[in-house]
Amino acid sequence: MPDATTVLATLDKELDWQRELYKDFHRHPELSLQEFATAKTIEDKLTGWGYAVQRIGGTGVVGVLENGAGACVLARADIDALPVTEATGLDYASTATGTDTDGSTVGVMHACGHDMHITALLGTAKFMADQRGTWSGTYIALFQPAEETAAGARAMLDDGLLAKVPRPDVALAQHVMATDAGTIGTTAGPVLSAGDSVKITVHGRGAHGSMPHNSVDPVVLAASIVLRLQTIVSRETMPGAFAVVTVGASNAGSKSNIIADRAVLLLNVRTYDTELRGRVIASIERIVRGECAASGSPKEPEFEYYDQYPLTTNDAGVNARVTEAFTAHFAPGTVYHTAPATASEDFSRLPDAFAVPYTYWTVGSVPSDVYRKAVANGTVAQDIPANHSPFFAPAIDPTLGVATRAQAVAALAYLAKGE
Amino acid sequence: MPDATTVLATLDKELDWQRELYKDFHRHPELSLQEFATAKTIEDKLTGWGYAVQRIGGTGVVGVLENGAGACVLARADIDALPVTEATGLDYASTATGTDTDGSTVGVMHACGHDMHITALLGTAKFMADQRGTWSGTYIALFQPAEETAAGARAMLDDGLLAKVPRPDVALAQHVMATDAGTIGTTAGPVLSAGDSVKITVHGRGAHGSMPHNSVDPVVLAASIVLRLQTIVSRETMPGAFAVVTVGASNAGSKSNIIADRAVLLLNVRTYDTELRGRVIASIERIVRGECAASGSPKEPEFEYYDQYPLTTNDAGVNARVTEAFTAHFAPGTVYHTAPATASEDFSRLPDAFAVPYTYWTVGSVPSDVYRKAVANGTVAQDIPANHSPFFAPAIDPTLGVATRAQAVAALAYLAKGE
Amino acid sequence: MPDATTVLATLDKELDWQRELYKDFHRHPELSLQEFATAKTIEDKLTGWGYAVQRIGGTGVVGVLENGAGACVLARADIDALPVTEATGLDYASTATGTDTDGSTVGVMHACGHDMHITALLGTAKFMADQRGTWSGTYIALFQPAEETAAGARAMLDDGLLAKVPRPDVALAQHVMATDAGTIGTTAGPVLSAGDSVKITVHGRGAHGSMPHNSVDPVVLAASIVLRLQTIVSRETMPGAFAVVTVGASNAGSKSNIIADRAVLLLNVRTYDTELRGRVIASIERIVRGECAASGSPKEPEFEYYDQYPLTTNDAGVNARVTEAFTAHFAPGTVYHTAPATASEDFSRLPDAFAVPYTYWTVGSVPSDVYRKAVANGTVAQDIPANHSPFFAPAIDPTLGVATRAQAVAALAYLAKGE
Amino acid sequence: MPDATTVLATLDKELDWQRELYKDFHRHPELSLQEFATAKTIEDKLTGWGYAVQRIGGTGVVGVLENGAGACVLARADIDALPVTEATGLDYASTATGTDTDGSTVGVMHACGHDMHITALLGTAKFMADQRGTWSGTYIALFQPAEETAAGARAMLDDGLLAKVPRPDVALAQHVMATDAGTIGTTAGPVLSAGDSVKITVHGRGAHGSMPHNSVDPVVLAASIVLRLQTIVSRETMPGAFAVVTVGASNAGSKSNIIADRAVLLLNVRTYDTELRGRVIASIERIVRGECAASGSPKEPEFEYYDQYPLTTNDAGVNARVTEAFTAHFAPGTVYHTAPATASEDFSRLPDAFAVPYTYWTVGSVPSDVYRKAVANGTVAQDIPANHSPFFAPAIDPTLGVATRAQAVAALAYLAKGE
Repeated sequence: MPDATTVLATLDKELDWQRELYKDFHRHPELSLQEFATAKTIEDKLTGWGYAVQRIGGTGVVGVLENGAGACVLARADIDALPVTEATGLDYASTATGTDTDGSTVGVMHACGHDMHITALLGTAKFMADQRGTWSGTYIALFQPAEETAAGARAMLDDGLLAKVPRPDVALAQHVMATDAGTIGTTAGPVLSAGDSVKITVHGRGAHGSMPHNSVDPVVLAASIVLRLQTIVSRETMPGAFAVVTVGASNAGSKSNIIADRAVLLLNVRTYDTELRGRVIASIERIVRGECAASGSPKEPEFEYYDQYPLTTNDAGVNARVTEAFTAHFAPGTVYHTAPATASEDFSRLPDAFAVPYTYWTVGSVPSDVYRKAVANGTVAQDIPANHSPFFAPAIDPTLGVATRAQAVAALAYLAKGE
Repeated sequence: MPDATTVLATLDKELDWQRELYKDFHRHPELSLQEFATAKTIEDKLTGWGYAVQRIGGTGVVGVLENGAGACVLARADIDALPVTEATGLDYASTATGTDTDGSTVGVMHACGHDMHITALLGTAKFMADQRGTWSGTYIALFQPAEETAAGARAMLDDGLLAKVPRPDVALAQHVMATDAGTIGTTAGPVLSAGDSVKITVHGRGAHGSMPHNSVDPVVLAASIVLRLQTIVSRETMPGAFAVVTVGASNAGSKSNIIADRAVLLLNVRTYDTELRGRVIASIERIVRGECAASGSPKEPEFEYYDQYPLTTNDAGVNARVTEAFTAHFAPGTVYHTAPATASEDFSRLPDAFAVPYTYWTVGSVPSDVYRKAVANGTVAQDIPANHSPFFAPAIDPTLGVATRAQAVAALAYLAKGE
Repeated sequence: MPDATTVLATLDKELDWQRELYKDFHRHPELSLQEFATAKTIEDKLTGWGYAVQRIGGTGVVGVLENGAGACVLARADIDALPVTEATGLDYASTATGTDTDGSTVGVMHACGHDMHITALLGTAKFMADQRGTWSGTYIALFQPAEETAAGARAMLDDGLLAKVPRPDVALAQHVMATDAGTIGTTAGPVLSAGDSVKITVHGRGAHGSMPHNSVDPVVLAASIVLRLQTIVSRETMPGAFAVVTVGASNAGSKSNIIADRAVLLLNVRTYDTELRGRVIASIERIVRGECAASGSPKEPEFEYYDQYPLTTNDAGVNARVTEAFTAHFAPGTVYHTAPATASEDFSRLPDAFAVPYTYWTVGSVPSDVYRKAVANGTVAQDIPANHSPFFAPAIDPTLGVATRAQAVAALAYLAKGE
Repeated sequence: MPDATTVLATLDKELDWQRELYKDFHRHPELSLQEFATAKTIEDKLTGWGYAVQRIGGTGVVGVLENGAGACVLARADIDALPVTEATGLDYASTATGTDTDGSTVGVMHACGHDMHITALLGTAKFMADQRGTWSGTYIALFQPAEETAAGARAMLDDGLLAKVPRPDVALAQHVMATDAGTIGTTAGPVLSAGDSVKITVHGRGAHGSMPHNSVDPVVLAASIVLRLQTIVSRETMPGAFAVVTVGASNAGSKSNIIADRAVLLLNVRTYDTELRGRVIASIERIVRGECAASGSPKEPEFEYYDQYPLTTNDAGVNARVTEAFTAHFAPGTVYHTAPATASEDFSRLPDAFAVPYTYWTVGSVPSDVYRKAVANGTVAQDIPANHSPFFAPAIDPTLGVATRAQAVAALAYLAKGE
């Protein structure tokens, strides 16, 4: 048997087509649930390599490669782009536009690196097809739409994913980040926060601005709520526990001399703990209701939850096995322990639905010299365009190669003959 | 000499054309500074009656009638309509539309009774021209544009009003209100509040919603300001003194998971006292600056004052003279002492510019039986459409007749032979 | 019949003993409900002058002088002193001490001029007894304890005042103020506010300061309540209406690192309108309960009302009659229209219990030159010691003479033969 | 050479006198810096066992035992009691009283287990003296006063500790906690928070409660500060970072109808990071100053820092060596990884002054069956009296034996022959 390193070396020759495909995806980004051309390309590739391919959840694509007895590994890439107008100046920059959920025309950009995720997983998928002799089991390459709107994983599940593919033993996903290119960050336990958005409408009573005594002032009510909500983190959460309650938007009224009849607050909640998440949400509702009562609000407040992301919490065993494989394969200094991030993802809905363990790791994408200089200067926040920035521009090399190998190494940790 | 009552009785025969003209104005309302047709009609009428007519301030019209030695009286009517879509169902209801200051197309309606003010003053103007034998002095009929935007009086002054007409000895104005039709309310001293609007922009630092530590949160800053502003009235103003500080609009952010970089507050301030007004405004700025400092705001707040209305405070002597004349002329029960209103007007800019005394009275416009029933039921607020309502519909009779006579009686109090 | 002026001139000869008696009262002040020596002196004097004297309400003294047919006038003076250590340096200054309600030993001082009220009313009482020939009817001189604690009028009523004295037709009271000595201020309608104090206890849950998540923090709860209470005046009260909601005390916790289990707020409410008073109190309770709910407070808040003073609102007819009499009797410039004061009194409980009209006026007590200089300098607040100050020192002349005459003139306005 | 286990077994025979001594200390607690009898007892014991004994910092006692070449280990116990009236009902409960810093007489109790710390360290000290043959180096047994007031470590340093004893290579301390008796918790890095208390005085302007416009209301100012301070943790601190800002006391005013002229806030700050600590304190000052400016406060606020505790952060190497020794010596299940506690200590001042590494561990003291039942019921907070509770009652066995052995095992990890 050739050893893993020898086998994986074959991946390098794939980089030529991968680089071109990456640029092509980057040039042609598609918004969430509108990834039609992207899905078609993926479908064609997988089919060409011998995968049993299905469209699941509209623009979701799943390829299954059965290769004898053994474990079943599901690897997932997200495929959608963002309503951001690209400003990188790259020669393969996007000039695409799309129609946003509110009907407006917006610039579209792969500003979160999903194009890298697709291309790397396609590279790995070809590798797994080419190297069937070196492993045994089942490999599932899953390409998920609409991660950015938290809708894609659910759409695939709603479309019957569980019944349509073999139940995996483990699930794998990765994300490019604005850190040192070529490095891989892993961790056990919480790695991405649960995210919940809630739209709160509170009711006052409108009146002319000179007659406040005829009103229940929603501006004052909203202000009281905003200040009171601060105490969920400052007083009700155990010091050092992770919880964020952000009132991203607070809007009421449009004229100086008219007291409006309502205020609308948009909140975002982040937690690493399901029980704490529940308590934070209960506290939000308790505070809003209490403040409405204090104001004499004439009507119950309304709570509308949306963009809800699950907690992403890596299984300790899976993370250990994958981290060990990474460490064995990559050069020293490549793999490091990463702290949990405050961002959120919907990947974990998939393994959670199968009730299987998973791990999720990060891949750096900023040229090392640039990144290290910014770290040395303490100017990372200013100098390094992060995910979702119109300037976000992963270095194709070495990012694409590392990301492709990472998916392959992680899969082989479960599927390689001898494992 | 015929006595005033006999002379004024001649006004009744004018009501026929006045009623038709009123309906015509009502059907064809024009927004502030766009009162082109309205001004043309006024101009033509005044010219026809022998007034020396000038256009001042764009759509302002002033007619001067010199009639021998004696006092000079300036009577003012405002002529603009509002961006309100009429819902009265009257057969002479407006179906007009116009272009609002933000470029949008809006319904237009005489929802504040300025059509009544114009028609009444035209009636008086004809009366003064017809009855030259009964009085001596100078009568100025001034039709002012753009009261609703606080821009019209200033526009006329900026266009040289002071130099273009004789300096009056006294100025007069009236306003129809949603009270018992046929009654007239007068008062000495403050009758309408000073009104000031201010747009306040406070600066935070934007960040992703999950990273509040990288932000200066403008939602929290705005909330703190709103609550603190309450103390200007509750703690800094002498109990029982009139002051209103309304935050009519407080807006920041548009997404739950993005911390915005600024918040915008629109405030409206009402006072009956120039010194108190100054202190309230100073307190607003002090509080906003203090709260910005408390937040660590990265940039000075900005204050932009707009829609500033002066205090309307009736001269005690003028009010006494006019009230006495009203009481002598009208039936018992017509004239009552009215409390100051919280609304604002820009009329007083005109006499203030001339440095002459003035009085301003109100004329009821709701059919007596309707009004008195609502008073008895304690349902005035619910049942009687007030000024600016899409249902505001003055009863033509007796309102138009009373308003016309009121302007005539008040003028004659200064100009009648023997006065 | 001698005219009133001639008769009243006889009062001047009483001033000698009045001055000495005033100094004696001033030297020997007694706290509320402890006015034992004071009451004894009053009792002896009245008895000596032929009054039918009763002790009512412990240290209350009432003398009734029946003198034929006619109206019945009740004149009231309050007699208690304050727990203030005198700092006037007067040669008749108090050095007395007493036991306050909390058991502590305190300095005692007639710092609110009640000694002047007693001495003036005694002068009038002697005058009424001496001058029986000039008037007809019934004169009641009522000396009430414990005005400072709002307990005295109630104590006299609880002790059967209504049944023990003839029902008056009118009631009269006066108060010395730190204004121009020799002047008298009168007004119709509200003259003193209703005053209500309330002790609010809100409950949290105590915890170590480093473990806020185990607590319900009463400091945060109290702060939220304090800010929210501001909106009762700023948003819920009609602009220009008189309402004060002062949180005079807010206390919670005693150690930096212990989160306490409760907070105590002491509020004072002032209004000129019974309906508004009710709404303000309802709003306080609504806000406190709403904020407790927002905090997740484990126990209902407690409201304990105390020191409740009724509204003092002068009858228009009585005020007019008394003001007319004052104006006729006193030199020009003596009588002026006074604005309502924000202070409170329990006098009105007495006429309200009898359901009879009343008036209440003020008497200036600061030497004119001193007062006018302070007015000119704009330094009244700094230079003139007001009621309750340890430096409060009414000028005996002309204050005592004017106050005595004022009570006599007001009584004769109802009782003089020919009235 | 006998192995450590054999040698340590000799400790069991010391428990008889240790138990009696523990009860004696418990019966006779002494307040901070008043530990006269306690110090005398310690001094006598150490002297008797051959230590070179010094009194340092008043009631601090240090015994040095030089025993040949090798490392120098400093072990520290704190010795003061608390102003708490014991309510345990133990037959050796304290009935002592003492004089608190404010002059009041208070009950005194070893409510934080320092009696256990003393007795255990004395047991170890005797063991080290008895077993000189098994180890080599220098052993310093340091008994520190006034841990509860953060004054003792500083007092010893101020009294020249650095010059009076050999510089240790490592320092050791332990604390009994209300956890499972017989267990030992260790951790690397932050184990106790830095604690800072600050007394903040903010200035208003006093006035009568009915005249708020003459005041700058300190109750409103304090409330605004309290709510704003919440944002330091909720908005300015990185989510998941440990920071506590507790306003333990907020006090202003004493009467409902008097607006006071100042408010006093007592804050407690806890952090695990020196840089963050600095930012939190800067934010507190910024917010207080900003709010004072917003109020128009007439005088700068005052900040008085007190009870400042340093961060306790265990050296990774020392913790590893000691934990390994514990694990080797104690039964399986004894040693566990403990999370950092939010409490604070002044122990670290001593090794920090010497610039030497240290570790600090916890020893459980609640009978296992009781503790485990409460855990199972989820009623630990309610059922288990924690440190500082008047019911805090460590189980003498096995707590005392484990604590004594822990100090011995940790010392031998550095001093045992062969180490």
